[in-house]
Amino acid sequence: MASTPIRIVGIDPGLRRTGWGVIDIEGNRLIHVGCGSVETRDGLALASRLLAIHDGLRQVLEDFAPVEAAVEQTFVNKDGVATLKLGQARGIAMLVPAMFGIPVAEYAPNQVKKTVVGAGHAEKNQIQVMLKILLPKAVPPTPDAADALAIAITHAHHRGRAALRMKVAG
Amino acid sequence: MASTPIRIVGIDPGLRRTGWGVIDIEGNRLIHVGCGSVETRDGLALASRLLAIHDGLRQVLEDFAPVEAAVEQTFVNKDGVATLKLGQARGIAMLVPAMFGIPVAEYAPNQVKKTVVGAGHAEKNQIQVMLKILLPKAVPPTPDAADALAIAITHAHHRGRAALRMKVAG
Repeated sequence: MASTPIRIVGIDPGLRRTGWGVIDIEGNRLIHVGCGSVETRDGLALASRLLAIHDGLRQVLEDFAPVEAAVEQTFVNKDGVATLKLGQARGIAMLVPAMFGIPVAEYAPNQVKKTVVGAGHAEKNQIQVMLKILLPKAVPPTPDAADALAIAITHAHHRGRAALRMKVAG
Repeated sequence: MASTPIRIVGIDPGLRRTGWGVIDIEGNRLIHVGCGSVETRDGLALASRLLAIHDGLRQVLEDFAPVEAAVEQTFVNKDGVATLKLGQARGIAMLVPAMFGIPVAEYAPNQVKKTVVGAGHAEKNQIQVMLKILLPKAVPPTPDAADALAIAITHAHHRGRAALRMKVAG
């Protein structure tokens, strides 16, 4: 008996580039569905950039119809202006899935690295190496799209299905 | 010849309470139209709180149909977690008017105080005293609603109509 796949969207928010990645959980396998990033131009007014992020993510949710979402927790640093910018983009990344009525989980960057690579302080490129193994068909166009897929994988592992084993395809 | 009034919404964003205030510019007079605040409960998930802010502001835009919006610029402080929370709420406050296709201006807190009270470092209660003079019919239910009206007044003064004189009603 084939089980219905569970579709997850992962989102890595940023004012300039918001990555998104969609995967299916099918039994004990993870399958890449799509990924990309929503980009906004520096010169645009803030409200227009936030609207572009909203419109882009809305399109992803409409096109792929995921049933659960996961968003990367923002790293709060000493640069208040950067934190504020990221916060504004992150607000939109949390809002759009909520507008579609789907639950939104949050994961810290270290938790994503620990889940995907096995170590909380892994380098960025280690995530990309593991992605090639875990989702061999994914060709993320940007690092943000790769991060978004890693967030989706993290959610697949932590969404209360502790027994989920990923098939590591060669 | 009666001129068409120009309707402005001012928004003071916050995760717990987002104030809003709507005024009309009619010739050289400012007229209070409505004000209030959208409140969200601490215990709710972040995505649900952001959705509640979105829904509340959307209702205001639908009910009052302003043609221009003004949002308070967030004060960036050393508390990164607080800045992030405010940033997320502010993202929604900027997004919703943009979704309605109206321009969104931003004003720093000091600019609001300077416009409404005449001094950039005025106390909060001085704003409320001036509001009673500038908009005698307004009875803001919360300080956030009062701040939102002050932001709307600031926009009325700085929206390129330098000649606008407010009628100070006794």
